[in-house]
Amino acid sequence: MNSFGRLFRVHIFGESHGESVGVVIDGCPAGLPLEVADFVEDTERRKGGIQKGTTPRKEDDLPIFKSGIFNGKTTGAPITILFENNNTRSGDYEKQRAVPRPGHADFTAHEKYGGNEDFRGGGHFSGRLTVCLVAAGVIAKKLLKGAGVIAKAKVTEIAGEKDTEKGLQKAIDQKDSVGGIVECEVNGLPIGLGEHFFDSVESLISHAVFAIPAVRGIEFGTGFAAAKMYGVDHNDALENAEGKTSTNHAGGIVGGITNGNQLVFRIAVKPTSSTPKEQQSWNWETKEVETFSIKGRHDLCIALRVPVVLEAVTAIIMADLMLLEQRISRII
Amino acid sequence: MNSFGRLFRVHIFGESHGESVGVVIDGCPAGLPLEVADFVEDTERRKGGIQKGTTPRKEDDLPIFKSGIFNGKTTGAPITILFENNNTRSGDYEKQRAVPRPGHADFTAHEKYGGNEDFRGGGHFSGRLTVCLVAAGVIAKKLLKGAGVIAKAKVTEIAGEKDTEKGLQKAIDQKDSVGGIVECEVNGLPIGLGEHFFDSVESLISHAVFAIPAVRGIEFGTGFAAAKMYGVDHNDALENAEGKTSTNHAGGIVGGITNGNQLVFRIAVKPTSSTPKEQQSWNWETKEVETFSIKGRHDLCIALRVPVVLEAVTAIIMADLMLLEQRISRII
Amino acid sequence: MNSFGRLFRVHIFGESHGESVGVVIDGCPAGLPLEVADFVEDTERRKGGIQKGTTPRKEDDLPIFKSGIFNGKTTGAPITILFENNNTRSGDYEKQRAVPRPGHADFTAHEKYGGNEDFRGGGHFSGRLTVCLVAAGVIAKKLLKGAGVIAKAKVTEIAGEKDTEKGLQKAIDQKDSVGGIVECEVNGLPIGLGEHFFDSVESLISHAVFAIPAVRGIEFGTGFAAAKMYGVDHNDALENAEGKTSTNHAGGIVGGITNGNQLVFRIAVKPTSSTPKEQQSWNWETKEVETFSIKGRHDLCIALRVPVVLEAVTAIIMADLMLLEQRISRII
Amino acid sequence: MNSFGRLFRVHIFGESHGESVGVVIDGCPAGLPLEVADFVEDTERRKGGIQKGTTPRKEDDLPIFKSGIFNGKTTGAPITILFENNNTRSGDYEKQRAVPRPGHADFTAHEKYGGNEDFRGGGHFSGRLTVCLVAAGVIAKKLLKGAGVIAKAKVTEIAGEKDTEKGLQKAIDQKDSVGGIVECEVNGLPIGLGEHFFDSVESLISHAVFAIPAVRGIEFGTGFAAAKMYGVDHNDALENAEGKTSTNHAGGIVGGITNGNQLVFRIAVKPTSSTPKEQQSWNWETKEVETFSIKGRHDLCIALRVPVVLEAVTAIIMADLMLLEQRISRII
Repeated sequence: MNSFGRLFRVHIFGESHGESVGVVIDGCPAGLPLEVADFVEDTERRKGGIQKGTTPRKEDDLPIFKSGIFNGKTTGAPITILFENNNTRSGDYEKQRAVPRPGHADFTAHEKYGGNEDFRGGGHFSGRLTVCLVAAGVIAKKLLKGAGVIAKAKVTEIAGEKDTEKGLQKAIDQKDSVGGIVECEVNGLPIGLGEHFFDSVESLISHAVFAIPAVRGIEFGTGFAAAKMYGVDHNDALENAEGKTSTNHAGGIVGGITNGNQLVFRIAVKPTSSTPKEQQSWNWETKEVETFSIKGRHDLCIALRVPVVLEAVTAIIMADLMLLEQRISRII
Repeated sequence: MNSFGRLFRVHIFGESHGESVGVVIDGCPAGLPLEVADFVEDTERRKGGIQKGTTPRKEDDLPIFKSGIFNGKTTGAPITILFENNNTRSGDYEKQRAVPRPGHADFTAHEKYGGNEDFRGGGHFSGRLTVCLVAAGVIAKKLLKGAGVIAKAKVTEIAGEKDTEKGLQKAIDQKDSVGGIVECEVNGLPIGLGEHFFDSVESLISHAVFAIPAVRGIEFGTGFAAAKMYGVDHNDALENAEGKTSTNHAGGIVGGITNGNQLVFRIAVKPTSSTPKEQQSWNWETKEVETFSIKGRHDLCIALRVPVVLEAVTAIIMADLMLLEQRISRII
Repeated sequence: MNSFGRLFRVHIFGESHGESVGVVIDGCPAGLPLEVADFVEDTERRKGGIQKGTTPRKEDDLPIFKSGIFNGKTTGAPITILFENNNTRSGDYEKQRAVPRPGHADFTAHEKYGGNEDFRGGGHFSGRLTVCLVAAGVIAKKLLKGAGVIAKAKVTEIAGEKDTEKGLQKAIDQKDSVGGIVECEVNGLPIGLGEHFFDSVESLISHAVFAIPAVRGIEFGTGFAAAKMYGVDHNDALENAEGKTSTNHAGGIVGGITNGNQLVFRIAVKPTSSTPKEQQSWNWETKEVETFSIKGRHDLCIALRVPVVLEAVTAIIMADLMLLEQRISRII
Repeated sequence: MNSFGRLFRVHIFGESHGESVGVVIDGCPAGLPLEVADFVEDTERRKGGIQKGTTPRKEDDLPIFKSGIFNGKTTGAPITILFENNNTRSGDYEKQRAVPRPGHADFTAHEKYGGNEDFRGGGHFSGRLTVCLVAAGVIAKKLLKGAGVIAKAKVTEIAGEKDTEKGLQKAIDQKDSVGGIVECEVNGLPIGLGEHFFDSVESLISHAVFAIPAVRGIEFGTGFAAAKMYGVDHNDALENAEGKTSTNHAGGIVGGITNGNQLVFRIAVKPTSSTPKEQQSWNWETKEVETFSIKGRHDLCIALRVPVVLEAVTAIIMADLMLLEQRISRII
């Protein structure tokens, strides 16, 4: 299902080269002021073509409100937002049809849907749909802001380099795409969000995070480094009745529940699958392995566009949990 | 909610020092032969006290069937299985009540549930409940086996050492607990399980995996190392019409969907929170930071007990997806 | 939530006097041929203005496909369909704002959403959204038709008259709206859909049916008359190994599960709340009870427009259950 | 799935002639005092053998708490309650195995589950499981009571007689079972529970009500009689700012949402399927229609045992909606 969330529920739809992509947000409290201007900063951040290393494809990406907003406020009914796809060049992709691109869903989608999938630009399997996540995130962030909660993500490493400019230069020099690390921090969370086991905060965040294309791993707090540590070093000593800890190896979550400290996690983003380099794949028509190279507009480092999407899905989860714990009212 | 799954649905309940813990499995196809003997291997693997580095606490851990099984087969009705808690020493924990143990859910559960939580031995927040996951996993594995799918997990690293004996010795020498890495492989999967975005295989697996206590990170295929790679090196070239790839950096999942290659992922397990070392925490009664040490029976390396639990949750997800894709029948 | 269904999942959105209303259908198998022409018959049936007793408001009501359809077939991705609202006269309603109309959601929506609801023409609470249900029903019916299942509904009584023309004349004579009874039959169902208890066929159908505005009751098979019967008269004797019964008091469902006989149920539809007669209600501004009459275009007997909507929600449920029981394939 | 509810979630399991039946309640707020004594009144009301017309089968029906309760209060973790089946005479039923009883799920369960179902006494398809609903209802009622909400149901008609003693006598005279009508009223509800369309209060209540075996119809407020009425007579005029209406044809729900007036609905209960009269059915073994009569202990009028179950499912829905609208706190 293309839905997520329990009380604040997000449904996404659309295809990269269809007329538009969109999102329905169900369960948003009534009375939240919402206008096009609220979306500009985040949809701009998501766009390529601005910073070095991202694709020159650009969309105006202005949200078109279809339902759920009246007199500038949310009504409590489902909010539907469309984003038009103005800048599509399907021809680029149709030539490629017989050869499923490595790292893309061309092959798996074709097998799963019996060849009925919209293959143009990845169709429904396109990063284009992340604009829908960003839009839902804008609303979630606004809800959270009223409750004093702020999620912020940034690229911390490209191609293994902490100096991201240097990492990006490696890609440019190699004429290849590269991967990166993105870190997200959430401040202002109350103690008590999430549950043990299936609805742990880690479960919910990771579920949503792997909905972002190209993510290959996630770690909370000290994460994989914890596997090399001793217990006494990893445990965060409690310092006061509010739950403040001297260190934050847990990343703000203990027993699946927020502990009132900063929530911190990192994700690994693979190199963009569409690389300018020559590659090999199976050709369904010739029934032979073929060497080819992908034309078209692509990101050298897709990780650069991920932070705003990561903030969005994190905010969606947090807004949902805040509603569940009755920390956000049903009428704002 | 203490439930997971869409068609093959698992509900867990119980407390570490209550009379028993249990699981309800709803949606299991009818006609699957099931007897106590099916559970022994996996519940034994989960137990401590056998291998060096695990807690001497032992339970008989024989499954008690309460519903859903008739004449040695599943009936299609919900299957309920209890495991008695025979070997509890609550006194060990009650002394500790005023001081929330670092790394445990003592503090967060207390705040979330207003002091009503069963604090004995972690209560509902105890690793004891993983026996319920293991039991559901036994059933899922049996369903999968009939369809040619097998999940297998193993510890690949302890305390940073690939030689796990050596890693464990570090813990013994340090008189402290240590973390580790566990890897899971699934063979025999068809192409086409999972969906893009919210129901990606990575989303579902990670959701379930973070329900296992002490997990701090997860990575699929090449995982975090992918963030340092170039695109041409990370992409797996398709070699034939069945989707075989020359490499498996993707770990068997592309676009959220299984591609017919081996599914591979790894998780990071933190050091057992209950370490024999002296620690500090806030004392709710004295309202001061206190130095203390935890008595009782504990694992030096909880990662050693994780593989069978990891196999279980993986099998649960896979059985669910196989049912969704109509790869497993509703009547066996 | 404005969603329903487990595998074939329907989400509706929009407001009566917004720009459009719409529906997202998630989980529809790939490969189903679908074109605008498939929708015309049912959207025409739903429209008013054709038959005596229905409102003259008309919409073109042509479905606008936004996602999920490619080369004339479903792709397996979410299908989004919009219907434009061309023929709205909000002015009719704005005058009425201070006086919540009896029988309408004006008062309850206002209280629930703190006055933020779109009140124009009932906003999200309008029968206008049933066009979305009809559209989802068209797709469900097409899936079912391929499996030999057909749902058909008709008005069987108006204003207490089995001769519906006579019943309608009573409304015209009285210059008032009237209620009616609608019956739905489903033929071709296999044995075994539904479950006992919460997922009984009756539970699922009634859940969906009460989503249709103006429905006040539902009964299966002999229904309320069964409360007056003796057991030996109500029981349907089984006549052969295929489950054929001599009578059908059960309406095709025993123990919550279809028994292979015709599924039959009836619903009670209240008189249209918007009657031309004078009424009384509370005026929020004057803070007094006020006598008023509703202007605008309305149905004398809304039951006349219900059959196609009832078929639709029934088909949606049946398609979902057929997918669950693996009676409809994931790829057509 | 044998589950229902969104925040206050109920899972039932067990078989009539198994060792026990049980229920898991997930999402109950922490801190609610709960003891065995709380359950006695309602489990006694559900029992047969006390009043004329109900089966002499008796169970002690004392709840056995397995999880979620500590120091006499709910902990916030899942609450598991078992009820032992002490008084089963499976032999009564095994003789009957070859002949599916009319009106029972014998035939449909057999076909659905491929003959693997537990057929003894109806197995999972037995009214025995309503004790689980009653137990969940006890907890829901206690939550509601704290919020000033009370649900109360009673039999209003037996065998077509409003004088229920007279109706019951008809059954005794005819040596047959009879049906009846049960009415439920809920007082003290706030305005604003429920949503339009799929989560209407009518949708949720009817979904849960049809989980009660033998229910054949439901109507809200004036119900089926509304189909014979004129609009001006059916509409309830609003009399004040709190939403009080002069009449209550709507039964307390407008637009799917509670309007602050009394919630009223009625259900039709069919005659007990197990009648002492001779009946006919197909014999799977002889492959012929066979005349037989059912031995064993049965209710003449199952409707007599329904009120407490109806209150229970109604309370479960209302508790869920009160939690959703933040009218009940997560910690009591």
